[in-house]
Amino acid sequence: MLPYKTLIQVDRDSSVSLHIQVCNIFISLITEGTLQPSDILPSSRILADLIGIARNTVKLAYEELISQGWAESAERRGTFVLSKLPVRSKVALFDGSKSRHDAPAFHWKKDFGKILPNENLQQITLAIDDGFPDVRLAPVDLLMREYRSLSRRYQGKNFLKYSSAMGSENLRIALQGYLAHSRGLITGTENILITKGSQMGIFLAAQLLLEPGDQIAVGVSNYGSADDTFRFTGASLLRIPVDEHGMDVDDLENRLKKDKIKAVYIIPHHHFPTTVTMSMERRMKLLNLAKEYQFAIIEDDYDFDFHYDNKPFVPLASIDHNHNVIYIGSISKTFAPALRIGFMVASEDFVKSASTIRQLIDKQGDTLLEEAFAVLFNDGEMDRHFRKSLKVYKHRRNVFCDMIKANLKDSIDFKIPEGGLGVWVNFDKRISLAALSASAAKNGLYIGDGSYYQNESFSPNGLRMGFASLRENEMEQALAIVSKSLSGL
Amino acid sequence: MLPYKTLIQVDRDSSVSLHIQVCNIFISLITEGTLQPSDILPSSRILADLIGIARNTVKLAYEELISQGWAESAERRGTFVLSKLPVRSKVALFDGSKSRHDAPAFHWKKDFGKILPNENLQQITLAIDDGFPDVRLAPVDLLMREYRSLSRRYQGKNFLKYSSAMGSENLRIALQGYLAHSRGLITGTENILITKGSQMGIFLAAQLLLEPGDQIAVGVSNYGSADDTFRFTGASLLRIPVDEHGMDVDDLENRLKKDKIKAVYIIPHHHFPTTVTMSMERRMKLLNLAKEYQFAIIEDDYDFDFHYDNKPFVPLASIDHNHNVIYIGSISKTFAPALRIGFMVASEDFVKSASTIRQLIDKQGDTLLEEAFAVLFNDGEMDRHFRKSLKVYKHRRNVFCDMIKANLKDSIDFKIPEGGLGVWVNFDKRISLAALSASAAKNGLYIGDGSYYQNESFSPNGLRMGFASLRENEMEQALAIVSKSLSGL
Repeated sequence: MLPYKTLIQVDRDSSVSLHIQVCNIFISLITEGTLQPSDILPSSRILADLIGIARNTVKLAYEELISQGWAESAERRGTFVLSKLPVRSKVALFDGSKSRHDAPAFHWKKDFGKILPNENLQQITLAIDDGFPDVRLAPVDLLMREYRSLSRRYQGKNFLKYSSAMGSENLRIALQGYLAHSRGLITGTENILITKGSQMGIFLAAQLLLEPGDQIAVGVSNYGSADDTFRFTGASLLRIPVDEHGMDVDDLENRLKKDKIKAVYIIPHHHFPTTVTMSMERRMKLLNLAKEYQFAIIEDDYDFDFHYDNKPFVPLASIDHNHNVIYIGSISKTFAPALRIGFMVASEDFVKSASTIRQLIDKQGDTLLEEAFAVLFNDGEMDRHFRKSLKVYKHRRNVFCDMIKANLKDSIDFKIPEGGLGVWVNFDKRISLAALSASAAKNGLYIGDGSYYQNESFSPNGLRMGFASLRENEMEQALAIVSKSLSGL
Repeated sequence: MLPYKTLIQVDRDSSVSLHIQVCNIFISLITEGTLQPSDILPSSRILADLIGIARNTVKLAYEELISQGWAESAERRGTFVLSKLPVRSKVALFDGSKSRHDAPAFHWKKDFGKILPNENLQQITLAIDDGFPDVRLAPVDLLMREYRSLSRRYQGKNFLKYSSAMGSENLRIALQGYLAHSRGLITGTENILITKGSQMGIFLAAQLLLEPGDQIAVGVSNYGSADDTFRFTGASLLRIPVDEHGMDVDDLENRLKKDKIKAVYIIPHHHFPTTVTMSMERRMKLLNLAKEYQFAIIEDDYDFDFHYDNKPFVPLASIDHNHNVIYIGSISKTFAPALRIGFMVASEDFVKSASTIRQLIDKQGDTLLEEAFAVLFNDGEMDRHFRKSLKVYKHRRNVFCDMIKANLKDSIDFKIPEGGLGVWVNFDKRISLAALSASAAKNGLYIGDGSYYQNESFSPNGLRMGFASLRENEMEQALAIVSKSLSGL
């Protein structure tokens, strides 16, 4: 007899009844080949004694096995594994301990280039991140209060049902007002699709615009996740230089004369990772080129809300009268990264196509969360949050830039960014950022090694250092660790 | 002079300061061609009088225009639109009223076949839906209490930062236990990816497995959104008959001898839309075929938790020792559709690839919501919810089936489903479901017209009638409208 006492271990605290647990274990024993067709099962009395459960429970388990077609009973002789089951050679279980590293037999796409896993910042206490907001500033409790209060009302329960893939209409109305007032982007609710952060806007635009063999123009330095998303469609990237006024549109024009370009991706405020702002002249010229050469402009403006010294330029979308701009923004970046809310603004037809694909991806967003954000916009809470954050982040930018100038000036070179949540810092070529990152980690500080910013045509010895998520004392702690690590390299 | 009194309308309640509003309006006038390069702007005194704001506000607006490079001032002569701006022909504004229906000049994919927009059930009070849960039963308030309480704690604030694309580790641990106890699916947390509903699982599997020209086997009748998702990859569908024991795996075997098939999509419990359960023999045979012919099985088991008469069969994934099954499930379907949580269980390598693509789509899920669900699993609340729902839905299934038998028996034919949230009802061929749907809508009832279930090889005159979301009195109301509508056709 098999060592049933070891093989059959039940969990008395589980909500699953004991006989079902026993039944499931027998199914495992059969399918893994430990029990073979026609093998006899122990009598209910013996098994009950062995594993310390009631005999009736074992009987119920056997009845369940029989009703599910795994076993059969022969009068007076006992219960047997169904004789007509296919014989299976004994295999290791798919159990997370033995064989989970075995590869399946089928094939799938595995080559995605250099896509790096998300930085998991949730377990880290001290980090110089990539330029993320300080989640401690966001009025999350107000949002949660609205979320909960909406869910309590019957009308709120309705928000829990399936709805449009375009997103909450109330939030689209609120965004319509916000976009008009904050950046002169006058648009209709039919032009707004609520997404999961700006990343989903980039993904949807890429899926609609690009096919294998197509070309998309991006900056020589660029947001790596956007590059990855475009490449995933099978398109290739055409790298255009970026200088202190943004993407070099004259260079782009020369390329357009020779090559078909389906789309241009820009981050006009503030270019990732180097934080430069695209000049107004280049914005106008890019719009004219889009009209002439019939390409789409993907304008990723996740950073619009944080501009410190003067008013930000209006987005290209606000002055685009030919509907060539697909405008992508984010609330996640201004509120909290894990609350995934963003938006895409484009022509009604394009937005319709995008919402069709969006249905295939995840059907729709979290309507209740979208509705709660709509309340925060309508109450003026979002405005208050933006104003407060802007003030805090401006101060932090100034303090942080002063600190790195004072502490690290022999090792680094940087310009104070006009906006955004990070400062682009070039390190002395003799400094290994990988070594710095590793050494800082040992001292309790997360700081990147710069590899995220590198691509086949851009290999700076630089880092985007996020100041927004750090209080002054945290900056001091963090930079002390950086200094210490640098001196130990 | 232009009619500035009409053109420049400010909103005194807006959080955007007045001078910025005036500045933005001038930018619009310039970029739409109403104001041309070198045009003179009205003096600050005149404009202030015209639109009723302080003269200093106008001056600030002009300074902003100048600093942004839209205008220039000439001593004593006034402020002018920048002379070196490109001349733009006057165009209609992208303003939601005039030109938003104009198509952009660039091209994008527009042909997605017959993909239907989501049914928006949030505005509807009485509906016979497709088989959705009753959101009134879900312990949403408990979930929201956890959500809010997590967000309040500092540790909760950390959940608002970026994290792994795999999803909350606590929820993966909770699901690991739940899957083991409820369906004998023994797996590791590295094998679990948290998704946005089961739809994202289908999308990710399709993106990884299928390329243009590939074939995927699906049922002759099938879940339309899955068909759409597979076709979106450029793959073609191979339709396999489905009878009362599920997909005909002998037919599949014959096709496999001739054709390369990359994957097979099944909904073993309960097939959509016809609700049949796949027999154990077919499950075993399908697993053997997958091993022999090296294809992936996408097992969509969104409906596992609702099985009424006996215990559901264990999933194929639970007895698959070759890692050929990609198992997809949903919490949205058992809780509330708008709270998008689902999961994919597969080999560690496959899950890694899927989480890489998932980063490109939306970076990650809503960690806080995932954590709140983890608490509900760990507290036993999810189990209580499943048990309570199962009891309520079983009762509703019985009552609903009795009612349609009593009220509609001359017009319909159906079998009582063993599980799931809807019953598949074939209507008399003389009944137009489109007419029924339209007539019911006039009387305040949403009921589908059956087009969602039809495809190129399946054209029943049938409907999936969801009973789970209706209380008895609502069923009575709804079916009275159906009867009345039928008699009026």
